[in-house]
Amino acid sequence: MRKFIPFVLVLTFLPLLIHAQHEDRKIQIRAFYDQTLSNRQSYQWLEDLCSLGPRLSGSEGSLRAIEWMKGVMDTCGFDRVYLQPVKVPHWERGIPEKAEILDSRGLRYDLNVLAIGGSVATPEGGILASVVEVPSLMALEDLEREEVEGKIVFFNSIFDQTNISPGASYGAVVASRAEGAIRAARKGAVASIIRSVSSGFDDVPHTGSGHYEASTDSIPAAALGVQSADLLHQILLRDPLAKVYLSMHCRWHPDTESFNVIAEITGNERPDQIIVMGGHLDSWDVGVGAHDDGAGCMHTLGALKLLLDQGVRPKHTVRAVMFMNEENGLRGGITYAEQAISNGEEHIVAIESDAGGYSPRGFGVSGNASQMEKLESWVGLFPRNTISYISRGGGGADIGPLNRADGTPMIGLIVDGQKMFDLHHSANDVFEAVHPRELELGTASIATLVYLIDQYGL
Amino acid sequence: MRKFIPFVLVLTFLPLLIHAQHEDRKIQIRAFYDQTLSNRQSYQWLEDLCSLGPRLSGSEGSLRAIEWMKGVMDTCGFDRVYLQPVKVPHWERGIPEKAEILDSRGLRYDLNVLAIGGSVATPEGGILASVVEVPSLMALEDLEREEVEGKIVFFNSIFDQTNISPGASYGAVVASRAEGAIRAARKGAVASIIRSVSSGFDDVPHTGSGHYEASTDSIPAAALGVQSADLLHQILLRDPLAKVYLSMHCRWHPDTESFNVIAEITGNERPDQIIVMGGHLDSWDVGVGAHDDGAGCMHTLGALKLLLDQGVRPKHTVRAVMFMNEENGLRGGITYAEQAISNGEEHIVAIESDAGGYSPRGFGVSGNASQMEKLESWVGLFPRNTISYISRGGGGADIGPLNRADGTPMIGLIVDGQKMFDLHHSANDVFEAVHPRELELGTASIATLVYLIDQYGL
Repeated sequence: MRKFIPFVLVLTFLPLLIHAQHEDRKIQIRAFYDQTLSNRQSYQWLEDLCSLGPRLSGSEGSLRAIEWMKGVMDTCGFDRVYLQPVKVPHWERGIPEKAEILDSRGLRYDLNVLAIGGSVATPEGGILASVVEVPSLMALEDLEREEVEGKIVFFNSIFDQTNISPGASYGAVVASRAEGAIRAARKGAVASIIRSVSSGFDDVPHTGSGHYEASTDSIPAAALGVQSADLLHQILLRDPLAKVYLSMHCRWHPDTESFNVIAEITGNERPDQIIVMGGHLDSWDVGVGAHDDGAGCMHTLGALKLLLDQGVRPKHTVRAVMFMNEENGLRGGITYAEQAISNGEEHIVAIESDAGGYSPRGFGVSGNASQMEKLESWVGLFPRNTISYISRGGGGADIGPLNRADGTPMIGLIVDGQKMFDLHHSANDVFEAVHPRELELGTASIATLVYLIDQYGL
Repeated sequence: MRKFIPFVLVLTFLPLLIHAQHEDRKIQIRAFYDQTLSNRQSYQWLEDLCSLGPRLSGSEGSLRAIEWMKGVMDTCGFDRVYLQPVKVPHWERGIPEKAEILDSRGLRYDLNVLAIGGSVATPEGGILASVVEVPSLMALEDLEREEVEGKIVFFNSIFDQTNISPGASYGAVVASRAEGAIRAARKGAVASIIRSVSSGFDDVPHTGSGHYEASTDSIPAAALGVQSADLLHQILLRDPLAKVYLSMHCRWHPDTESFNVIAEITGNERPDQIIVMGGHLDSWDVGVGAHDDGAGCMHTLGALKLLLDQGVRPKHTVRAVMFMNEENGLRGGITYAEQAISNGEEHIVAIESDAGGYSPRGFGVSGNASQMEKLESWVGLFPRNTISYISRGGGGADIGPLNRADGTPMIGLIVDGQKMFDLHHSANDVFEAVHPRELELGTASIATLVYLIDQYGL
C-alpha cells in the first residue's frame, strides 16, 4: 500500500504536470514573440549591417561586416564568440558594365546589364557580335555549332509565375545563369547573356554565380534586366542581324582570408551536443543583401540573443554561425563542416534561414520520419500566422555540407516569399524592403524552434 | 444474387470514384491559381480602379468607380449585372487641415494632421487651446471636468506591437478615434486629437470614422501622424502650457444616391440559393484604398470571373457585391441585407475580403460546428502557403447585417497583414503597395472556397 499511493498520485497528477509544463512552454514562446516585436533588435541590427554596404566575399565590405558582427556579438554576453578562418574566392565586378543593341539600321538601344558573378571580363574594347536567342539550355543543345560560333548566346528563359512558391520557378531557370557560359562556349559562342532570373517586371538586372569548366574557354557571362531582355527579344524578331555590344571589367584576385563569425551559449547539461543555426553574412555586390541574407543572420543572431535575454539556460550548446561565402563558393559552410568533423563535434540539428525576412510560414526538414513527426507535433505551439506546417525537404546551402558529412538533420525556415525573387541578387535588395514585424516574427519562430528542440530533443 | 453484385461493385469502386472526384477537384483548384498568377486580372483591374482616385461615399470619385466597375462587369459575360441603390452619407474634408504647436516661448512646430472622417470643421480662424494628454479613453474618465474644459484633449494611445495580428492592436485603440470626440466633449473640451491608429513609425496621419452623440456638442476631431504625436508628447512633458492650433474645413452634405454594384452567375441546379462574396468599393479620401478595399473588390470580382473563365457552371447562384459605404456608414451592407430579406432570398454563405491584398493565410468563420468542420476538412485542398487554417470568428463589416438578419454563416479572408496598419486609411494606401502575386493568391483562394461550397454545400 505504501508503494501504491505514490503510484496512484503519479497517475493522477502526471497529466496535470504535463499540461502545466506545456503551458509554461507556451508562456515562454509567447515571451519570445513579445520581446522581438517590442524591441526589434534584429531589425535594428539589420539596419546597421546594411549601412556598411554590400558584402561580397573578399571585399572590403565583407571585412567591415565581419568586424561589426563580432563586435555586436561581443557585447551580447554570449559564452563564446570567435572567428573561424575561411579561405574565400575574391571576384570583383570592376567599373560598371555596359551593353547595347546595335540594329541593322545603326540605331543603338541601351540595355541594363550586370556581369554574372565569377565572369571573366570582355576583351579590351568589348565584344560586338550578332546574337542567337534560345529559350533554355536544352534548346541550345539542338543548334549546330555553326549557328552559334562567334555569336553571343541569349538565354531568354521566362520565369514561371504559376508556381505558388517562386523558389521553384527560380530553380527551374537558374541553370541558364549557372551553366549558360559553359554551354555557349562549348558551341563556340563569344559571350553568354541571360534574361535575369527574376519574378519582377522591372529592368533591374539580377546577378548570381555562374560557372566555367576547365576544358572550355571561359567566355563573358552577363544578365539583362527583364525589360531589356524583352526589348532584345523584340528587336531580334524583326531584325535577326541586330548585334549586341558588351563591355565588362570583372577581375579575379587570389583567394583571400575571411571568416565565419560564431557565437554560442554553452549547454548546461549536454554542452557537447550542439544545436547550430545560421545565415550567410556575405551578399552579392549590388544592393546590400538585406533579405539575402542579412535577414537570416539577424534571425539567428536575434534568436540566440533572445534565449539569453529570456533567461533560457539551454541544456545543449546553442550556436549561431554567420557563414561566409554562400553566394560564390560555399567555403564557409564547407569549412564549418570540416572543422566540426575534425573536432569530433556532435550536432543535434542544423537550422538555416536564407529565404528572406518575410513572415514565417513553415519549416522545411531534411530528417527522418520520427524527427518529422516530432516537429509536426509542435506546430500548434507556434502562434497562429507564424509557423503553420512542417514540410519534407529543406535546410540550407550553408548547412548542407554538415548534413552530408555526418547526417545531421537540417531545417530551413520557409517564409512568405512571394516578393523575394523580385529583388534577389539585385540592387533592390535593400534595408527598406524589409518589414520590421515580418523580420522579427522570423527571429521569434527560430528561437521557438531551438527552444523546443533543446527542451524535448529531436 | 442479382442485387448483390452491383452492391459489391459499388463497395469496391466507391472509394476509387471518390478519390477520382477528389483529384478532379484538385486539378480544378490548381487551375484557378495557375490562371490568376498568369493573367493577373485582379491586379490589372486594381490598377485601373486606383487610377480613378479616392472613393469616399458620395464623392465624384465614388461615382466614377461605380460606373467603371459596372462597365467592367458588363464586359465579363456574367448572367446578371446591376446596381442596387443605396442612400449614403456625404462628408467632405475640404481644403487641407492645419495643426501646429505653439510653445510658451512662442515657437511653432508643424504637425501632420487629418480630420477624422465625419468631423465638423473648426470655427472660422481655427482653434487655439492648451492641451490635456491622456493615454486612453479610460484615463480621460479619471479627470475632473475643470481639468479638461476649454482644452484640446490629446489621446496618445500607443499601438501595441506585440500582437501577432496587428488587427487586434487596431481594435484595442481605435475607440479613441471612434469615440474620442464624444468623450472629450462630455468633459467640455473644444477639440479632440488622437495619435493615429497606426502600426507604422512615420508621420503620415491615418483617418477613419468618428462619431458624435446628439446629447453632446460636436467638437472637431483630428488624427496626428505618429511622429507628430511623439513631438507633441515631448513638448508637453517639458512645457505643459504649450498650445495647439487646429484648423479644419470639413463639411457635411445631404445624403446622396449611390449604389452597390453586383454581378452574378445563375446557379444551374439551385438558382434560388445564393453564395455571396464581396468587398467594399468605397475608400477613404486619402490614398486610393488599394488594400482597403480595392483588393477585396478585385479578390471577389476576380473569383467570379475565374469561375466563368474556367467553365465552372455553379449549381448555386454565385454573386459578387461591391458594397458602398463600409467606411462611414455601412449603408451598402445594410441595404443589401434589407433587400435580401424583403426579396426572400436564401443565402448559403456570405464571404468578405477586407483585410488587404496580402498573401492569404486562412479563413475566419462565423458559423456552426458542422460548418467549421466541413471547412477544416478542405484546408488540405488549398495549395501550401495559401490557406493554412480555419479559425473561429470572422466575416466582414458589409456582410454582418445579413448574418445578423437571417443567420447566414459568414467567412472572412485572413491575410498576412503585418504591414496593413502601416498604411490603412492613410495616403500610403496606394496601388504600388500591392504585390501582384500576393493579390492573385487571394483571388484564387476565394474562388476555391466558393467552388468547394458550391460543390459540397456547407
